[in-house]
Amino acid sequence: MATKSLEILIDEFNRLPGIGRKSATRLAFHILEMSETEIDRFALALKSAKEKVKRCSVCGNFSEEEVCSICRDEFREKDTICVVEDSRDIIPFEKTNRFKGKYHVLNGKLDPLNGITPDKLNLKKLLERVANNEISEVILALNPDLEGETTALYLTRLLKPFEVKISKIASGIPMGGNIEFADTATISKALEGRQEL
Amino acid sequence: MATKSLEILIDEFNRLPGIGRKSATRLAFHILEMSETEIDRFALALKSAKEKVKRCSVCGNFSEEEVCSICRDEFREKDTICVVEDSRDIIPFEKTNRFKGKYHVLNGKLDPLNGITPDKLNLKKLLERVANNEISEVILALNPDLEGETTALYLTRLLKPFEVKISKIASGIPMGGNIEFADTATISKALEGRQEL
Repeated sequence: MATKSLEILIDEFNRLPGIGRKSATRLAFHILEMSETEIDRFALALKSAKEKVKRCSVCGNFSEEEVCSICRDEFREKDTICVVEDSRDIIPFEKTNRFKGKYHVLNGKLDPLNGITPDKLNLKKLLERVANNEISEVILALNPDLEGETTALYLTRLLKPFEVKISKIASGIPMGGNIEFADTATISKALEGRQEL
Repeated sequence: MATKSLEILIDEFNRLPGIGRKSATRLAFHILEMSETEIDRFALALKSAKEKVKRCSVCGNFSEEEVCSICRDEFREKDTICVVEDSRDIIPFEKTNRFKGKYHVLNGKLDPLNGITPDKLNLKKLLERVANNEISEVILALNPDLEGETTALYLTRLLKPFEVKISKIASGIPMGGNIEFADTATISKALEGRQEL
């Protein structure tokens, strides 16, 4: 009963991650209630984000400049690199205000069955950075799933020859989480990673 | 740490209903991973939905034609009108395949404190329809909240002179719902609306 243009718009919203058919419908109806100016501004924001946002030539993070603001920041520690799968993973780290080093965005994780082989990842530049600069530590901050663990293992082997300290962020019970409801894998990791007090 | 164009895009998504900051960020990052063709198609869908979708001159439903497909449908009963607040409320009724009449979209509900007075609603055309056509029943299908009930009361008074049957859809325990967890207002409505078996 929705009109054709409306159906098309619902389909477009439905394609976005985490937007089901119902939410897509609600959003599309909302668009119809927006003014033309608002819609133009939204459409422009979509296009110009894609147009202007490129990858930082150093770390692979999203950036509107050749080199991103984090890589350009003189006050950040140059000798520590935190390796993440994805640009969006940088946000929670930055929010903590506890990490003062720089990042490296792999832009994915190893998943050979789905065609993500090492050549698909932003690895060459990581090696260059570790080889050329005075990097003392590479912190692996990959998601603790099968592909993330595989990637961490691969990176550990790859970086071994550089005599750089390689660490991995801890897996365990999340803060505020509930041991009662934690899965066995998490409990096992929390046990493995136990620290003497 | 997100770039400026990305921040703007996140803001745009964040303005949509039900999209919080976190979802908006996820969606914006997803846009950056889409191809330019996909983004152009999305932007076009936004604009052309707004451009092409107008209000049906009879019932006020969204339509790409002067008169919507439901109002044009010769096989639907002409003598029953189901009054809804919003175009999107038509969808669940149509899904049931049980209602064969036509609709009338008020485009809101009375809420004087927020400036929604009777003149803001699509009422004049409803009166015209009831006055000019052979309408035998007007079914009020407004949301069972304060404004919806007020609007239903107002419409009942407004339509009284036309000697048309006025009914209101039932409120009560939803199918599959749980009496144990139902609120008192719903229980009261369910009791009030009890039917002899």
